Amino acid sequence: MDNRAMRDARVGILGGGQLAQMMAMAARAMDVGCRFYETSSAAPGATVGEVVTGSFDDRESLRRFAAGMDVVTYEWENVPVDAARLLAETAPVHPSPRALEVAQDRLVEKDFLRDLGAATVAYAAVDGEDDLARAIDAMGTPALLKTRRLGYDGKGQMLIPTPADAGAAWAQLGDSPLILEQYVAVDRELSIIAVRGADGSIGHYPLVESRHEAGILRVSTAPAPNVAPAIVALARTHIDRVLATLDYVGVLAIEMFDMGGTLLVNEMAPRVHNSGHWTIEGAATSQFENHIRAILGLPLGSTDAAGLSCMVNIIGTLPRLEAVLAIPDAHLHLYGKSPRPGRKLGHVTVRAAAADELDRRRDAVIRAVAPELLAATGR
Amino acid sequence: MDNRAMRDARVGILGGGQLAQMMAMAARAMDVGCRFYETSSAAPGATVGEVVTGSFDDRESLRRFAAGMDVVTYEWENVPVDAARLLAETAPVHPSPRALEVAQDRLVEKDFLRDLGAATVAYAAVDGEDDLARAIDAMGTPALLKTRRLGYDGKGQMLIPTPADAGAAWAQLGDSPLILEQYVAVDRELSIIAVRGADGSIGHYPLVESRHEAGILRVSTAPAPNVAPAIVALARTHIDRVLATLDYVGVLAIEMFDMGGTLLVNEMAPRVHNSGHWTIEGAATSQFENHIRAILGLPLGSTDAAGLSCMVNIIGTLPRLEAVLAIPDAHLHLYGKSPRPGRKLGHVTVRAAAADELDRRRDAVIRAVAPELLAATGR
Repeated sequence: MDNRAMRDARVGILGGGQLAQMMAMAARAMDVGCRFYETSSAAPGATVGEVVTGSFDDRESLRRFAAGMDVVTYEWENVPVDAARLLAETAPVHPSPRALEVAQDRLVEKDFLRDLGAATVAYAAVDGEDDLARAIDAMGTPALLKTRRLGYDGKGQMLIPTPADAGAAWAQLGDSPLILEQYVAVDRELSIIAVRGADGSIGHYPLVESRHEAGILRVSTAPAPNVAPAIVALARTHIDRVLATLDYVGVLAIEMFDMGGTLLVNEMAPRVHNSGHWTIEGAATSQFENHIRAILGLPLGSTDAAGLSCMVNIIGTLPRLEAVLAIPDAHLHLYGKSPRPGRKLGHVTVRAAAADELDRRRDAVIRAVAPELLAATGR
Repeated sequence: MDNRAMRDARVGILGGGQLAQMMAMAARAMDVGCRFYETSSAAPGATVGEVVTGSFDDRESLRRFAAGMDVVTYEWENVPVDAARLLAETAPVHPSPRALEVAQDRLVEKDFLRDLGAATVAYAAVDGEDDLARAIDAMGTPALLKTRRLGYDGKGQMLIPTPADAGAAWAQLGDSPLILEQYVAVDRELSIIAVRGADGSIGHYPLVESRHEAGILRVSTAPAPNVAPAIVALARTHIDRVLATLDYVGVLAIEMFDMGGTLLVNEMAPRVHNSGHWTIEGAATSQFENHIRAILGLPLGSTDAAGLSCMVNIIGTLPRLEAVLAIPDAHLHLYGKSPRPGRKLGHVTVRAAAADELDRRRDAVIRAVAPELLAATGR
């Protein structure tokens, strides 16, 4: 490949996975080039820009990466905060390193969200086996023991069904600082994604209903059906407070539990988010384009939904292309990753004008890419 | 850049301009890599795939380019037919070299379209100054003298307002084989784009109304307003016949004159077409994705329009990004080319649910990217 893509990069992205790739594709349409900082050159980003390989503690390599960039951003909240702060000496970093700091520690995050007035499940810091016993006494079981850091897609957590199971969970996770969270029966999971521009303007995407299996997002429906206006308003209040408090620039996602009339805030992701992939085809402006617009100081695009959308993740194995592409208004995205159990390889977004049509098309997509989900629910 | 984009290419595209770039971006979302054959490595395609530089008479270089490709296609109808036939010995070439042969000679093209039952303006072959005089006698003036080959965007043609102007036009163009065409007062220009799959299935995009200035497409509106069903049916009949006759695979565009109740077919383009750029945001499946699907033998996607769209070309000078991005539901595409008078640098597609809203947004886009067009019509 000629080095055009190297010469013209203006946005540096920490991480080169599918989120970075989709940001770069949105940027490319506006003639904005991106480069990626990754530990592996085989990342999906390599198909759309230069991958600079290096570790997150290689200060020289990080500095060289950021040199000449208009802005540096990231696709992953577990970028070391020190690396982000170092980069901020060379180029603006958005969202701010402070957002990373909050989002990458479940305890700090929950304290932060509570301080802003959001309801959460009961939780307690667990720094030793005694803490764990006390916390279980206080909040009961079932409960979830989680590492405070580096958990994603259901990794780094164990369910404690009864007090007798605490020891096993501790044996598994006790090496790390932990948090115990009350396990609640959830009506459904909702998420809200918003984007804040450099000028403080905010755009909210519609709430999304998400279905997880084994801790991994499988299906998102947007706009989430049957959401009372008061719930939308509450979710917007929460995300607006987070955005303002962090003087945030870019796309932010907050995952919530719908408890039948009220919301428990679960966690935030200071980045574009899997529950927003539907926006590529289903919204006036995608989350990826709006993130790029925001961090470059450009006007935000409309976050309005166009009709109804449903996104189904492709996990572990690749589907037959023909089966997916034959579904009306289905949009296939493959990230170029090798199949491996539990790995996000792509997604399909399907659109429709009416809910029953969307349901039929969603089921057709699920049959094509994740038939085990239909079996699980007997459809 | 790592060489991932080189390793994984499956589609070879002759040409590396914006049409090739947009095909490659659509392909990339499906994890299909593209490479480009170009005379210059500075082509827009270089940002999304490998550019192989070479001339179209370098047989060895062409063969190496096609080796290992699933399919070879092109973004430009003036690819030498001999090069396409040579490539077809190494990999399937779609659309077929025969389509190129027809489309790159205005006389062959008009004969071909007439033979299929389409009405055209009066025309005559002009191989000498005597032919020109006879043709002007027969069809009168004004008339257009055009080179049979290599004309595009208004190049290679001259208007002959009166018989006395024939000599000047001949002096300008007489070195090439020519065609004289009757100049007709046209109500408006329409185009139809269709895609034909490897299995013979056909999808038609809605008719598009196009406005040209100085021979260059400036504004397209889709679906074209106020088109009688009989006109749509006629346009579809024409394009279906061309597709079937050429056993065509891929996207084809036909430009037509709306003569107030009937159509004169003007020319065909055996490729994705500028008047179809609106399909990226305005149709269920873009022309670029459908072309890639077709040539890879995959099922076609829906060609339905989603609401109303208008596309405005960015010609010669770049607009202020902020001005474009502030327009509701406006989608900016910049190709990464250096500004130069008359050069297509990008386009903006704007969508709306209703015609009056579309008009307002289109005018806002025109103010931002081509204010001279508003001045020209006094808006």
